[in-house]
Amino acid sequence: MPLPRLAVVGVGLIGGSFSLALKRAGAVAEVVGLGRAPLDEALRLGVIDRAAANIRDAVTAADVVLLATPVGQMPQLFAAIRDVLPPGCLITDAGSTKQDVIGAAKAGLGERVSQFVPAHPVAGREKSGVAAAEPALFEGRHVVLTPSADQRAEDVDRIAALWRACGARVSTMTPTQHDAVFAAVSHLPHMLAYALVDDIAARPNADELFAFAAGGFRDFTRIASSSPEMWRDIALNNREALLCEIDSYGDKLAALRALVAAGDGPGLERLMARARDRRDAWLARFNVGAENTAE
Amino acid sequence: MPLPRLAVVGVGLIGGSFSLALKRAGAVAEVVGLGRAPLDEALRLGVIDRAAANIRDAVTAADVVLLATPVGQMPQLFAAIRDVLPPGCLITDAGSTKQDVIGAAKAGLGERVSQFVPAHPVAGREKSGVAAAEPALFEGRHVVLTPSADQRAEDVDRIAALWRACGARVSTMTPTQHDAVFAAVSHLPHMLAYALVDDIAARPNADELFAFAAGGFRDFTRIASSSPEMWRDIALNNREALLCEIDSYGDKLAALRALVAAGDGPGLERLMARARDRRDAWLARFNVGAENTAE
Repeated sequence: MPLPRLAVVGVGLIGGSFSLALKRAGAVAEVVGLGRAPLDEALRLGVIDRAAANIRDAVTAADVVLLATPVGQMPQLFAAIRDVLPPGCLITDAGSTKQDVIGAAKAGLGERVSQFVPAHPVAGREKSGVAAAEPALFEGRHVVLTPSADQRAEDVDRIAALWRACGARVSTMTPTQHDAVFAAVSHLPHMLAYALVDDIAARPNADELFAFAAGGFRDFTRIASSSPEMWRDIALNNREALLCEIDSYGDKLAALRALVAAGDGPGLERLMARARDRRDAWLARFNVGAENTAE
Repeated sequence: MPLPRLAVVGVGLIGGSFSLALKRAGAVAEVVGLGRAPLDEALRLGVIDRAAANIRDAVTAADVVLLATPVGQMPQLFAAIRDVLPPGCLITDAGSTKQDVIGAAKAGLGERVSQFVPAHPVAGREKSGVAAAEPALFEGRHVVLTPSADQRAEDVDRIAALWRACGARVSTMTPTQHDAVFAAVSHLPHMLAYALVDDIAARPNADELFAFAAGGFRDFTRIASSSPEMWRDIALNNREALLCEIDSYGDKLAALRALVAAGDGPGLERLMARARDRRDAWLARFNVGAENTAE
């Protein structure tokens, strides 16, 4: 039986794609959206069926609420939801960081945190906004749930079933484990890509440099076209894990620099071959698709 | 009138694609190849017409010689070519570094350095080897020539014409300018990508980390699947410029780290927005294709 009503708070790439995927699967009857800007485009594209006037309007008659805003907005949303949340309604989120979101949920929702199932869909594109939403965005992608003893197993299962209806592969982690894993394989690379573009852009000869930048540079920096607001929040909200990753990476880069400075050809080739072999094995094993997906 | 005979020394992705592109354009009559391994596949694929027995055999009857080996092999090749180089024969190369190759040419060729026109085709793929060669590899790509007063203008024009026949956009730089530009936009990103994969691969939980790495990680690290031998040589042969770039990048990363550590949201968002806007403007202006090309 389809979910009677889903409320999507933050109707952008992720929230819009969740709605489209559930609609395509026949897993939801009605989607109500809430955004910062008017939702004309989301209505026109059929991403939502109705635009809510405010958070109370969005939540009061919903069966499930998805928070798909930048994580920095979630504390105030949880606080606003607390008094209007129907007893049987579940909340989930799409934040890329989990310890901070769970902390905000506890602070904002109080004992009603039992109705919140934290989730992170590991999918996305460097394009943001509802116009980029697509029903296939989560197909074959990981969705990581980070529930605790605060939530009931059957509620976690209900949220997992929705993500599976989108075609996603659902797994669970502790929030700490989640934040450490994604600091390494997602948050750090985003910082590295932003840093490279900003480094080049600040040069007096930036125009010449960009003129000769080619496909390697383009792909390396693709994630530097991601939403600054979203990634600012992720960097700040997963600060400790990210700082550890930046430091670990700095150590590795210093080691590589030392090999270059010393003219250590065998050492450099060993490092490069190890990296290439590991990456190629990863690509072959996990069959990461060719689609233009980030996270 | 097509070139009667081209000799390709190093029949891999670049050398093979140069041959295929000139053949397709009707710009060459016969291609002789020389490789470290038997050239059966290159012959079978029609990339070369004949396999030379040695460097003397490859060069003696050639009109143009392309050196498309890793740059570390070029010193010995120039030395071996010196005594067998026909007077009217031009040599060019496809090395990603230029000051070192020119130095090797002067040392190896002596006064015959006048017959060497240094070139860098800014194209490639992370796949190496002749099986990856394709005639369209250089279409719309930059080829940078770095001639000096040692070479005659008409010889530089002849080499430029061959690259244009491959569909490339030919420009010229000084060797120093070339090496500085590509250290920034190509050599540095390759080092950064190798370093990230090697950093992750060295962790006790590497398997878990790779299991949750997604499209952003895949594209960021694509160039870490490039040939270790080739990139070892590039790193060592453009050492000074690369070390400067690693240090400049380290400073930028330290600045970004400080913003994260200080919880400076506006500062982080400014940096990220600046990088995103600059990258998006670059993509729009230079219309870098969607093909899977590195350099």
